[in-house]
Amino acid sequence: MLDFTYYAPTKVYFGKEKHKDVGEIIKSYGYDKIMLQYGQGSIKKSGLFDEVMKSLTDSGITIVEMGGVEPNPKLSFVKEAIKVAKETKVQMILAVGGGSVLDSSKYTAAGAMYDGDPWDFPSRKASPQSALPVGCILTIAAAGSEMSSSAVITNMELNMKRGFNSDLNRCEFAICNPELTYTVSKYQTACGIVDIMAHTMERYFIPCEPTDLTDRISESILKATIAAGKTLMENPCDYDARANMMWASSLSHNGLTGCGRENALPVHQLEHALSGEFDHIAHGAGLAVLFPAWARYVYKQDVSRFAQFARRVWDCTEEDDEKAAKTGIEKMAEYFESIGMPTKLTDFDIDAHCADRLAELCTFGKQRTVKTYVDLDFDKIKEIFESCM
Amino acid sequence: MLDFTYYAPTKVYFGKEKHKDVGEIIKSYGYDKIMLQYGQGSIKKSGLFDEVMKSLTDSGITIVEMGGVEPNPKLSFVKEAIKVAKETKVQMILAVGGGSVLDSSKYTAAGAMYDGDPWDFPSRKASPQSALPVGCILTIAAAGSEMSSSAVITNMELNMKRGFNSDLNRCEFAICNPELTYTVSKYQTACGIVDIMAHTMERYFIPCEPTDLTDRISESILKATIAAGKTLMENPCDYDARANMMWASSLSHNGLTGCGRENALPVHQLEHALSGEFDHIAHGAGLAVLFPAWARYVYKQDVSRFAQFARRVWDCTEEDDEKAAKTGIEKMAEYFESIGMPTKLTDFDIDAHCADRLAELCTFGKQRTVKTYVDLDFDKIKEIFESCM
Repeated sequence: MLDFTYYAPTKVYFGKEKHKDVGEIIKSYGYDKIMLQYGQGSIKKSGLFDEVMKSLTDSGITIVEMGGVEPNPKLSFVKEAIKVAKETKVQMILAVGGGSVLDSSKYTAAGAMYDGDPWDFPSRKASPQSALPVGCILTIAAAGSEMSSSAVITNMELNMKRGFNSDLNRCEFAICNPELTYTVSKYQTACGIVDIMAHTMERYFIPCEPTDLTDRISESILKATIAAGKTLMENPCDYDARANMMWASSLSHNGLTGCGRENALPVHQLEHALSGEFDHIAHGAGLAVLFPAWARYVYKQDVSRFAQFARRVWDCTEEDDEKAAKTGIEKMAEYFESIGMPTKLTDFDIDAHCADRLAELCTFGKQRTVKTYVDLDFDKIKEIFESCM
Repeated sequence: MLDFTYYAPTKVYFGKEKHKDVGEIIKSYGYDKIMLQYGQGSIKKSGLFDEVMKSLTDSGITIVEMGGVEPNPKLSFVKEAIKVAKETKVQMILAVGGGSVLDSSKYTAAGAMYDGDPWDFPSRKASPQSALPVGCILTIAAAGSEMSSSAVITNMELNMKRGFNSDLNRCEFAICNPELTYTVSKYQTACGIVDIMAHTMERYFIPCEPTDLTDRISESILKATIAAGKTLMENPCDYDARANMMWASSLSHNGLTGCGRENALPVHQLEHALSGEFDHIAHGAGLAVLFPAWARYVYKQDVSRFAQFARRVWDCTEEDDEKAAKTGIEKMAEYFESIGMPTKLTDFDIDAHCADRLAELCTFGKQRTVKTYVDLDFDKIKEIFESCM
């Protein structure tokens, strides 16, 4: 087991109706002036916005509204939010939404305490030294941003989607009411399932020594997520399935699945290039295509681990490791298909000759490789993309 | 899944040599005057004390020494420590040791910020409203106190061992170096294994709805702990086994295994009476005898759950639930025996007629029952104790 630091300080308020306590919760931290960030208005249609506003105003909290966060949140929006946060001297940011609103809010929180250009964080010119606290009411289980240390943002001028990690990015609290996700579409639910599984599998399949406890916890999260996904395709309002999915999303990405292991997200790196280039591709859907393709490409480097995955997660009974490993990967691919995910990049209606461009993006113009069992250079990445056309 | 609040803010520094960073870590929080609590001096023999002192003094930290914490820490010691902490105005408590030193330190930390009698906390006359921060260097993996919200203390005047739970009892940081546990005896290691398993199983066997993800995580912790225990009986210096055991100890008791479930520790309640009455009985050893006895007594109330435990944790293949359930309990008992734990209370060389007295203690003189699948009153508890004589 490798040395590690585990730090997941977010207080999670989990359960039915919990969002109605948001005002009281914020008051318990001593804040009385906050910025409220949310997305494109779906929370207004659902009635959630009114419930949140009621709870906040009942607690006497002054609210600076900052709606309109887009999917793949934009640096320009964040810059505006930072300006407003500084001017209005809000004490914290409340994010009501999914990963995009969370990331935008975290980014705003760090930027509000920084005098330079907030793009300095992902471009590694500066690390945030302090940040406003962030709390959230989660409406989509997928990104795990509610407990994670990362915030990802898109710089439209540079056409780049990049993030930065910092413990300052950890939410102070997260309010997780699974009922709020009943209205997430089947497609977006399936995308979330894939994202949660990918966060777990990225850390599971990494070249390092076995770590029995972390392995088993990761397998637990995968099994519970797979089961929840199956149930939700039949019954989107199954409370327990929504709850297991939501809690799995937090645990998959809060550090727990990486304890004692190397840390890298190779398939996420491939996918960020893909959905960065093609705006209409949902992150989870991109991962659903790329994960099996990546696995088929690298599994030979660690057959016994892929065999363990097959046996413990997919209940494969093949005794031969090589056969089990291959079966496990195909079971994963079949599962993604069974919950309505695409199986090929061409399903996205994109040019079958874009592999060059995507490999270029992944390697920042052949300037870097993607680290995994084998260092993936331009040619290897291109091959992986081509294998899923 | 029941509603829950999850809060495990302790920053865990896990790995080899980590204790040598303690001065730097404490400095990073801004403290420069601390109380150092430790036990009966084994850390002096092992050299750990000198290493800790060197790191602290190298960082310019002023140390108020408070050695001599006994196993089952005493209220009288804690009262003295509180007095010293108040007089010397230390900013934090550093615990170097296992569960007893941790509990003593946590208790001191809360008491140092309270003007009344510190026994008010377990006797429910007052809740702590603030506490000094506590950090620790863990030397025994067992109690899980390094991430838990509890602190247990013995009041010799009243002959009572009682505790209180509070988020203020959560350590600010925990330094976990598995190498420091190499010298823990086989017997004490086995006791730790049982304690970790018991913390997990207490929350697993509880009358409430299934919670797929929490179930599976609990089963993971159990499987990894069982495997680590087996390895350590053969090779006490197996780093990975020590590491898995140490991390399992933290996760078993930090709240994770209780998410979405009812919370109660019935077998711990029985055991606290036992080792409270008989000082020579180690907590883990008492649990090793009582857990199978309790399970045999209650399993019929939830056969399918005990069958799930048998299949997922002990790889039982019996199709019949009743048979599987019984086999699972016996496998647990056999495992405890295989790592050198006693199987009967009479193994402790105690009076076979003490069941009355123990049942009396558990029920505070027939004034309460112990909640579990069935409410355990005096007669039922007596029956359980008698069944393991």
